Amino acid sequence: MTRKDGVRAARRRVGVADTTFARWDMGGAVADELKGRSGAFDVLRVTVPGIKDLPVACKNLIERDGCDLVVACGYVGGAPIDRECANVADHALQHVQLMTNVHVLGVFVYETEAKDERELAWLCDRRAREHAVNAWRMLFKPEELAAMAGTGQRQGYEDAGPLGVDLREHRARRK
Amino acid sequence: MTRKDGVRAARRRVGVADTTFARWDMGGAVADELKGRSGAFDVLRVTVPGIKDLPVACKNLIERDGCDLVVACGYVGGAPIDRECANVADHALQHVQLMTNVHVLGVFVYETEAKDERELAWLCDRRAREHAVNAWRMLFKPEELAAMAGTGQRQGYEDAGPLGVDLREHRARRK
Amino acid sequence: MTRKDGVRAARRRVGVADTTFARWDMGGAVADELKGRSGAFDVLRVTVPGIKDLPVACKNLIERDGCDLVVACGYVGGAPIDRECANVADHALQHVQLMTNVHVLGVFVYETEAKDERELAWLCDRRAREHAVNAWRMLFKPEELAAMAGTGQRQGYEDAGPLGVDLREHRARRK
Amino acid sequence: MTRKDGVRAARRRVGVADTTFARWDMGGAVADELKGRSGAFDVLRVTVPGIKDLPVACKNLIERDGCDLVVACGYVGGAPIDRECANVADHALQHVQLMTNVHVLGVFVYETEAKDERELAWLCDRRAREHAVNAWRMLFKPEELAAMAGTGQRQGYEDAGPLGVDLREHRARRK
Amino acid sequence: MTRKDGVRAARRRVGVADTTFARWDMGGAVADELKGRSGAFDVLRVTVPGIKDLPVACKNLIERDGCDLVVACGYVGGAPIDRECANVADHALQHVQLMTNVHVLGVFVYETEAKDERELAWLCDRRAREHAVNAWRMLFKPEELAAMAGTGQRQGYEDAGPLGVDLREHRARRK
Repeated sequence: MTRKDGVRAARRRVGVADTTFARWDMGGAVADELKGRSGAFDVLRVTVPGIKDLPVACKNLIERDGCDLVVACGYVGGAPIDRECANVADHALQHVQLMTNVHVLGVFVYETEAKDERELAWLCDRRAREHAVNAWRMLFKPEELAAMAGTGQRQGYEDAGPLGVDLREHRARRK
Repeated sequence: MTRKDGVRAARRRVGVADTTFARWDMGGAVADELKGRSGAFDVLRVTVPGIKDLPVACKNLIERDGCDLVVACGYVGGAPIDRECANVADHALQHVQLMTNVHVLGVFVYETEAKDERELAWLCDRRAREHAVNAWRMLFKPEELAAMAGTGQRQGYEDAGPLGVDLREHRARRK
Repeated sequence: MTRKDGVRAARRRVGVADTTFARWDMGGAVADELKGRSGAFDVLRVTVPGIKDLPVACKNLIERDGCDLVVACGYVGGAPIDRECANVADHALQHVQLMTNVHVLGVFVYETEAKDERELAWLCDRRAREHAVNAWRMLFKPEELAAMAGTGQRQGYEDAGPLGVDLREHRARRK
Repeated sequence: MTRKDGVRAARRRVGVADTTFARWDMGGAVADELKGRSGAFDVLRVTVPGIKDLPVACKNLIERDGCDLVVACGYVGGAPIDRECANVADHALQHVQLMTNVHVLGVFVYETEAKDERELAWLCDRRAREHAVNAWRMLFKPEELAAMAGTGQRQGYEDAGPLGVDLREHRARRK
Repeated sequence: MTRKDGVRAARRRVGVADTTFARWDMGGAVADELKGRSGAFDVLRVTVPGIKDLPVACKNLIERDGCDLVVACGYVGGAPIDRECANVADHALQHVQLMTNVHVLGVFVYETEAKDERELAWLCDRRAREHAVNAWRMLFKPEELAAMAGTGQRQGYEDAGPLGVDLREHRARRK
């Protein structure tokens, strides 16, 4: 397996970045989920203190360590300032991607999403794993994502599913 | 048809990016709307998991795949965090354009805009198609857009139309 | 009239960008206001669908078409999302300026500023014209702007004027 | 006095940018405050229409005119949109600094800070002058700023002062 | 001790930036905490007026002074505008990191976090010291951070700790 441009080595690298702030080992869940998957790739991990330390860590995983895709795991506390920090980090993760032309999949879990610690742990774990699957698909099976366009996929809680509507009676071709 | 700089091939490329998060095949609607239009162009599609994965996908469509214009389809869920994600993606889509000097037309539909699933499906479809028409105009008929300056065009719901006011009695030339 | 660096031609270019979303021909008002003014300059116009399409259009007016200054006309609808779109575009217009070192004067009108359609039309027209005058001043009479520093100028509604306060009794030189 | 890199001339340049929107001559206050100070420097002034025109003006003062530091004076009206404009300009002033590695001290006064026009004029004047002193310190006496670390300095209204607390009983060295 | 790329000198440099606005000597606390730690490194300090002056100061510590990591200490006043300034600075600190590929650890304390001046002083001091330890770990013991992934570490107030949940009964491997 080689890239179209023929420059990089055949073996892919998936970066996983997470934080000591998180209360669940989200990076571990991503790595565990990736482990059993097919395809020639290695997983590189880095752990930083908090969510705002993730972007440059991801950029270094890409530029210094040659990752072809990164999964960035952010855990967002319940205070308004935590939400604001997540937003700052989120904008920066976009910059990382645009500066490198490499995808960084953000796995963000907000403490306020879950009703108790058990659900929170479950959500961290499951969302991390579902994003890990997407990361794998982007590298090895993009056609699987193409087939799911517009089907209401969600990571973590239940999929929303496609809208069950038939527009054929409505639709009039616009000039 | 050749570009002024004479570098690119005569045939244009329109990129279409959408998500598996969306509950309607918005990218499919764009592609379908473009299909019957005149002009020498090809459509390239890519599907990513969510709205925040669109910007770098659009940038790759431009820089790696040579697209002359991209239509980015984002579907925004009803939770406040979904709105925030859309905003993050929206800023990044601006960066993509400014880094490449290529237009990316954003087709964003907010779940909260529609009163039920039928209207939501209709809105996704129609807004996607109307933006597709604008994409086509930008490449092949910019003079049509020029002729519509200030006329209150909308994509999706009904056009607002121009203000029906005559200012001639008011207006005094300012020094 | 030549630029200090002696590189560009003597004749200046003023770009005007507006939208089909606007309900008043703001770009037309800018162009009309500029028409009668002294100085060697040409006006280049472009019309795009919406406010978020303005930034890259302005950048192309500068980088591809050689404009020395651009006036960007944005019309902002009354929904909260319209305001958010305007904010996204506004940030991007800053990036355009910093990437090119060229001024882009933003003429933004918010539907919510006016009490009815007549006032809205009047505001669109007048604000556009007053920004056009400023654009002209920046290129040909910067000393006129210097003379107005701190005088409470407004574009559209009435000038606020300078604060009518004499601080001489107060002011003590700080070490 | 020469810079470490020995490239720039010995004489420093301080840029001052302000607006015609402001209701007080803040740029004039900065220039007046700098005038009597020691050190070899010149002051360059530019006036633009509004706060969102300041960033590129500052960048030009740095890149085109060789300023070693700029003071940017922004006056923020009382409407919510004015606040939003100030925020947009503020982000862009950060970009200017990071693109040039030169400090731009922002002197922002919000109309809502003062209870009447007299206080507003006083605040504009005093904040401008106190930032002017900081600008001068950054260029000629950075050790004065170092000596004030953590001392609760404010520009405009009264200094907050350092927290009058002794932590020695508390503090335990963390491993 | 040398970097992998073998380019930089063996001795590391840690930058510390703080403000005269802060009411506690946070930079001093960082420097004091670093002083006793093992490893070959020097500490470089700079003090600027306010939180929005930190980003370019950090960038200069990295690019001009060769720092391998910077700790940026920001103290946020209680007014809404202070919060907004902190947010602007925070975004810019992200840009600094992405432009340099160097970590900048932000130590932000919000006046509103503490119930009185004593707690505020304690919080400034402790958060600064805990971030200093993280800075040291990032340079000299990244494996310590890796070992703490997902363990709910906090800087300042008490650690949240890991979620005490066992998901093994739940978890079903997803295809």
